[in-house]
Amino acid sequence: MKREDVLMEALPYIQQFHGQIFVIKLGGHAMVDQLVLEAAIRDVVLLSYIGISVVLVHGGGPEITDKMKAMGKEPKFVGGLRITDQETLEIAQMVLVGKINDGIVSLIAKCGARGVGISGNDGSLLIAKRKELQVVTIEDRTERVDLGHVGEIVEVDPAILQMLLSNEYIPVVAPIAIDRESNSLNINADTAAAKIAVALHAAKLINLTDVDGVMDAERTHVYRRLKVDETNEMINSGVISEGMIPKVEGMVYALDRGVGSAHIINGNTEHNLLLELFTRDGVGTMIHP
Amino acid sequence: MKREDVLMEALPYIQQFHGQIFVIKLGGHAMVDQLVLEAAIRDVVLLSYIGISVVLVHGGGPEITDKMKAMGKEPKFVGGLRITDQETLEIAQMVLVGKINDGIVSLIAKCGARGVGISGNDGSLLIAKRKELQVVTIEDRTERVDLGHVGEIVEVDPAILQMLLSNEYIPVVAPIAIDRESNSLNINADTAAAKIAVALHAAKLINLTDVDGVMDAERTHVYRRLKVDETNEMINSGVISEGMIPKVEGMVYALDRGVGSAHIINGNTEHNLLLELFTRDGVGTMIHP
Amino acid sequence: MKREDVLMEALPYIQQFHGQIFVIKLGGHAMVDQLVLEAAIRDVVLLSYIGISVVLVHGGGPEITDKMKAMGKEPKFVGGLRITDQETLEIAQMVLVGKINDGIVSLIAKCGARGVGISGNDGSLLIAKRKELQVVTIEDRTERVDLGHVGEIVEVDPAILQMLLSNEYIPVVAPIAIDRESNSLNINADTAAAKIAVALHAAKLINLTDVDGVMDAERTHVYRRLKVDETNEMINSGVISEGMIPKVEGMVYALDRGVGSAHIINGNTEHNLLLELFTRDGVGTMIHP
Amino acid sequence: MKREDVLMEALPYIQQFHGQIFVIKLGGHAMVDQLVLEAAIRDVVLLSYIGISVVLVHGGGPEITDKMKAMGKEPKFVGGLRITDQETLEIAQMVLVGKINDGIVSLIAKCGARGVGISGNDGSLLIAKRKELQVVTIEDRTERVDLGHVGEIVEVDPAILQMLLSNEYIPVVAPIAIDRESNSLNINADTAAAKIAVALHAAKLINLTDVDGVMDAERTHVYRRLKVDETNEMINSGVISEGMIPKVEGMVYALDRGVGSAHIINGNTEHNLLLELFTRDGVGTMIHP
Amino acid sequence: MKREDVLMEALPYIQQFHGQIFVIKLGGHAMVDQLVLEAAIRDVVLLSYIGISVVLVHGGGPEITDKMKAMGKEPKFVGGLRITDQETLEIAQMVLVGKINDGIVSLIAKCGARGVGISGNDGSLLIAKRKELQVVTIEDRTERVDLGHVGEIVEVDPAILQMLLSNEYIPVVAPIAIDRESNSLNINADTAAAKIAVALHAAKLINLTDVDGVMDAERTHVYRRLKVDETNEMINSGVISEGMIPKVEGMVYALDRGVGSAHIINGNTEHNLLLELFTRDGVGTMIHP
Amino acid sequence: MKREDVLMEALPYIQQFHGQIFVIKLGGHAMVDQLVLEAAIRDVVLLSYIGISVVLVHGGGPEITDKMKAMGKEPKFVGGLRITDQETLEIAQMVLVGKINDGIVSLIAKCGARGVGISGNDGSLLIAKRKELQVVTIEDRTERVDLGHVGEIVEVDPAILQMLLSNEYIPVVAPIAIDRESNSLNINADTAAAKIAVALHAAKLINLTDVDGVMDAERTHVYRRLKVDETNEMINSGVISEGMIPKVEGMVYALDRGVGSAHIINGNTEHNLLLELFTRDGVGTMIHP
Repeated sequence: MKREDVLMEALPYIQQFHGQIFVIKLGGHAMVDQLVLEAAIRDVVLLSYIGISVVLVHGGGPEITDKMKAMGKEPKFVGGLRITDQETLEIAQMVLVGKINDGIVSLIAKCGARGVGISGNDGSLLIAKRKELQVVTIEDRTERVDLGHVGEIVEVDPAILQMLLSNEYIPVVAPIAIDRESNSLNINADTAAAKIAVALHAAKLINLTDVDGVMDAERTHVYRRLKVDETNEMINSGVISEGMIPKVEGMVYALDRGVGSAHIINGNTEHNLLLELFTRDGVGTMIHP
Repeated sequence: MKREDVLMEALPYIQQFHGQIFVIKLGGHAMVDQLVLEAAIRDVVLLSYIGISVVLVHGGGPEITDKMKAMGKEPKFVGGLRITDQETLEIAQMVLVGKINDGIVSLIAKCGARGVGISGNDGSLLIAKRKELQVVTIEDRTERVDLGHVGEIVEVDPAILQMLLSNEYIPVVAPIAIDRESNSLNINADTAAAKIAVALHAAKLINLTDVDGVMDAERTHVYRRLKVDETNEMINSGVISEGMIPKVEGMVYALDRGVGSAHIINGNTEHNLLLELFTRDGVGTMIHP
Repeated sequence: MKREDVLMEALPYIQQFHGQIFVIKLGGHAMVDQLVLEAAIRDVVLLSYIGISVVLVHGGGPEITDKMKAMGKEPKFVGGLRITDQETLEIAQMVLVGKINDGIVSLIAKCGARGVGISGNDGSLLIAKRKELQVVTIEDRTERVDLGHVGEIVEVDPAILQMLLSNEYIPVVAPIAIDRESNSLNINADTAAAKIAVALHAAKLINLTDVDGVMDAERTHVYRRLKVDETNEMINSGVISEGMIPKVEGMVYALDRGVGSAHIINGNTEHNLLLELFTRDGVGTMIHP
Repeated sequence: MKREDVLMEALPYIQQFHGQIFVIKLGGHAMVDQLVLEAAIRDVVLLSYIGISVVLVHGGGPEITDKMKAMGKEPKFVGGLRITDQETLEIAQMVLVGKINDGIVSLIAKCGARGVGISGNDGSLLIAKRKELQVVTIEDRTERVDLGHVGEIVEVDPAILQMLLSNEYIPVVAPIAIDRESNSLNINADTAAAKIAVALHAAKLINLTDVDGVMDAERTHVYRRLKVDETNEMINSGVISEGMIPKVEGMVYALDRGVGSAHIINGNTEHNLLLELFTRDGVGTMIHP
Repeated sequence: MKREDVLMEALPYIQQFHGQIFVIKLGGHAMVDQLVLEAAIRDVVLLSYIGISVVLVHGGGPEITDKMKAMGKEPKFVGGLRITDQETLEIAQMVLVGKINDGIVSLIAKCGARGVGISGNDGSLLIAKRKELQVVTIEDRTERVDLGHVGEIVEVDPAILQMLLSNEYIPVVAPIAIDRESNSLNINADTAAAKIAVALHAAKLINLTDVDGVMDAERTHVYRRLKVDETNEMINSGVISEGMIPKVEGMVYALDRGVGSAHIINGNTEHNLLLELFTRDGVGTMIHP
Repeated sequence: MKREDVLMEALPYIQQFHGQIFVIKLGGHAMVDQLVLEAAIRDVVLLSYIGISVVLVHGGGPEITDKMKAMGKEPKFVGGLRITDQETLEIAQMVLVGKINDGIVSLIAKCGARGVGISGNDGSLLIAKRKELQVVTIEDRTERVDLGHVGEIVEVDPAILQMLLSNEYIPVVAPIAIDRESNSLNINADTAAAKIAVALHAAKLINLTDVDGVMDAERTHVYRRLKVDETNEMINSGVISEGMIPKVEGMVYALDRGVGSAHIINGNTEHNLLLELFTRDGVGTMIHP
């Protein structure tokens, strides 16, 4: 591959993306391996250099569990769902906002740009209501379970993000929302990223995770491009399953509401983000309307 | 006191303060008693209603100690100074940013305004360098002690605060800074408030704490107004002592660099902030150039 | 009443009124007693200090009569209505524009703000047409009387007021209009205030006069709050009578066209304007939709 | 004269004057003959049509005297200077502001533009101090006479005029000022026009009066162009005398402070203003630096 | 005719035209006689002085023919239409853009204003498609002739003209367009002027040519004013004939799409442009809706 | 070379160049081989896509000579310098402005961007004066030769270029200037590019020509980076000779006046422009201060 060909291939994308908004969800391995995280942030800062407005949204489930255990608090799950009591919520907030979020902002500074950490209560970005009781099947009976301080987003006010982007800051959003009475609620980061992408009319919603993309039933190859309709069929037929389902559903939600395209990329391999964005073939899965 | 007289007395202050910047340090009791904190935030929101740009800076020492103990980590002090190892720093960050800061932002939302939580790394607001070894006298020998991840501010870039204020958000600043290599450092909140006040050309620097102001040697009455020179003499003569010294020194630092006036107010009595600002006599101590 | 309570009660009103437009009609005693007038202007200037855009409209009937007599010109009335011949009009203009209006502007300067005197011909603010012949009952016969150079407003162009308000001047409007041929016409000040309030989408129309408000049939107490419908009934039933009728009708006209609320306040008691605006109970009558 | 030559001659002036500020003093006959006044206003409105910002300043001495007599008040003069007691001041204000000024504004409306009447207290445009005692020679003794409520301008704040001009209104200024205590003072209109021209950095100061310009000693011909130095000599040698002296002195004052040129034009002949401005030779006297 | 009357007549037109856009087609004699051209440009620059935004469009047929002959290339015509092969197009472009257009821009500079030469490919101003085969009657048979590189305009993007006008440049447009593949095409200048006038919502479309206007059948007098309907009838009845037909049709096209009025003026007589625009009677033919 | 490495290497340059101004001189082979020219323009358009403001300046000597011969006009040279009589100037203008310049603008449109062709008389961009007599050595005697209509630039007014750049057009400048009397003069394109770069405070001045850069005395290798001082020495020592001298002198002129760096690149090899700009080593010669 000649240098000039790489450049010629990349420059039109660079042009196309200039001034667009990308919402990037950081998840999986990237959140625990500091070197992988730093490589991802370096790529994100490069994107901001060429005029792309990036909003980062991160999760942090494994670290919350770790910290709970360190504090002698046993995580409780019913039917696979975490029960978030007041104490758990406080730990989650401290880990998400005080540790992970703040750490990403420091990495952005280290890579030469300016980040700003944001929770859903900052500028009333994310308003949620407490999740209804969940029907859970435990052994052979179903039960309605109260998940505790867990919310689902009912309103996104993107004003604070727009202000930060237009002042060339990179916002970093922790998955905490507030309800109408200003109580904090834990929320799902994939859903938060999707709703933020819609509210910002983002051009792309990108999920930087630890799988290579949507794979076929035999797990032998990655689909490079999928239409929204195809993904719906693949969910129905079980090809898309388990943890991939909520990710893809969030993307479909966003694509149905005007987001341009969605990408699932393996963040464990350095520069995959750049290769996905600036080469014709890409390296992950792109879902488009 | 007739209502109209209170109003007539207050309105000129309301006029005078319109469009000014006040930096308010929240400390002491206000940080632990939720009702006191909420009353203080309610007053702060009222200030923002009448066109005052408020920046809040908070501390959180007692809560960090509590949380360390809860996590089975023994706080270490040498000669009265806390030693901040890596683990202590992480806990401090989680408590300051993930718990106290986020909680204040939620209270602001509850009182009807929009806050945004900020650490020193957000937008590279506060750049610090690690503190030099401190000379500490323990029993009868002096020792040079490394306090660990503790910094002193070397640069304030108020751009992010100015952006937030001009968009009518109330910034809430946690006392965490970053060094030139983007490592986090714990910093003193009083000093941070003073340096931020200077960087913003604030009209007032207000310390909402749990004493009534600067008192005379016999602790029988509070000085209402002091000149900078007088406070310097009172420090030399020992009238101002102990914990009051760094507060007053921070204020003198700010007043010497253009901040209009500084106030020490007891935040434990509801509405003291309003009475200090909107009545001729006030209730705390005002220091002026 | 504790000071802090007065302040806490007042501050939300101060917030609410910030940036709103109030049209205040100065009438009655305020126009003849210089001390009362100055007290009223001082309160108005305080309102402007806290970000309220105030437009003053004044009358001046008694002073016109005085000046006519001083100039040896006998005022003529038919059935209680003043006949305004060319000479009377000239005297009215001189008194209203050259004396009262100019005097109020000087008082505003004395109280520390900047007023600008305005007639209806300035910037073509008030376009009127000559009033039709009025049917008047004199003794036991009715007669159609030509009132002379008296007009009713047919168009308000608020551009000049908006320009002045957005440049932080206090406009002072004299009740003189021009017709389409640019002839001057005397107009009713209450009506002018109401029409200006509508044209400016004012939040409040305030009548600072020399009665305490709308009173009950026995004249024993003042109604604090009335709905538009109630005032209509009270006019029909005669509870509202005589000079109060045109005032209330002007207010109903304004409230029906989007003005937020209307107030009748006794301007003879100092600071009644402040008490009406910044306390829950007020001191006059507030009419609202 | 062919039409195209008139146009070719005029167009460069039209270009040159576009966006410039002209201060025009209306005096003499124009103030008493309604037809002459209306013709002058029509020309002024035409000037505004082609992008010239015109400020009108008017006098009114003769009419004040008339009105005083009508009100049975005998004008008093000492050594040729009018003594302005409180009652005289009030009449002067009523005539200048309530009659003449208001009348000019109505004429502007009639000619299709928008005027705004302004006194020196509007927006604190003209701050004056009371004139010192004047040394007057009466018969063969000199006496120091207190002229009463007569002022000399000490400060011009042109903000209100600039606001009006930039919003395409024609300001009409009455020669009334206020002192630092907001008392009204009668001032000389020629001086007011000159000081306003300086404060506005006007391109031209024009005196529309009832003489043809500066004439030679024999009163046989009018000087078309004079340098400031020449006028000074002519004052010293007595060629310029009496009522022309203060006019020319006002112009020299303005020209010395940056006003581009000054013109004396006979307003009694229709369209003299246009001919002076848009032809090479002009019809009056132009004084330039 | 008195000077003041000429001025009084002209000034309202000057007012009316201020800020309007005029598209002026320069044709006929003006393009070959350098003195006539310079006189026309001088008038155009005067128009720009008084705030009229002028766009010049020029032709150049005779000069192209001259240059072709000079280069030993024989112009070919079929049935009166020029056949434009590749070589002819190149010569046309060089003459129109490199000689005529550039020459007009230099004349504008000489007259004291700033012109900018523009072809239809500059900023993609004029997009054309190749003209379809033309049915031509030669002797007694009709033939379909390919005119070669001759286009008709399919799209006008006035952005570049609007930018130039708002920056006070005078754009000078050569009648060259590009097709969707960026090939140059020769186009008719009258049509180009009409389409540009429509795209700019011009107030006037002016044809400065070498006839006095639309004349009656006997060629004895010029029509001063014609309605669009009348011109249509005159074309049908043959009163308007030959070379005048495409000019008038272009004007009707423009008038039907919102251009205010159209003028045909003899540019050979100096200042006819000024006389047509600034006198009531004018000198050419004005066509209006 | 891996794709991601090419991207990682290029992105920081892309960031650095964003918003900068590059002046690119197109010369040599690029001007005669249509395929080479189109490749160069395609690269230039890519640069504009990523936020670089490009100004193109072109020459055209060989084509002028060709066209002169085609028109039967013999080019005259004295001592190697072209004599430009009136007829030669006219041909030069037609070729430069009407053919080459217009052709480049069409190519820009073909590549998807918007160009605008500009001569030095457009917006009075380039003011020149006629060159003084040149001392030329012919055989063994020196002679002072009048080169005719050849100018040297005395003033650059970059306003029109700044307007075009800020509206995202690519200006294409032909080397024609006007003198103070608006006569056209032929100028050297290298010098024009250098003076325009200085006037625009350009970051780079790039010479896209048909040599690989500055070579050593043996013509075996190209210098990648040279300091201004080094180039001066190389001119003195004769390493830089002949046609390279004026190019390098123009660059030194620009670098001495604030232009950031200068590049000589062989435009005959496709994409050399991109490789020079977006790789660490580059392919031509970069001269820097």
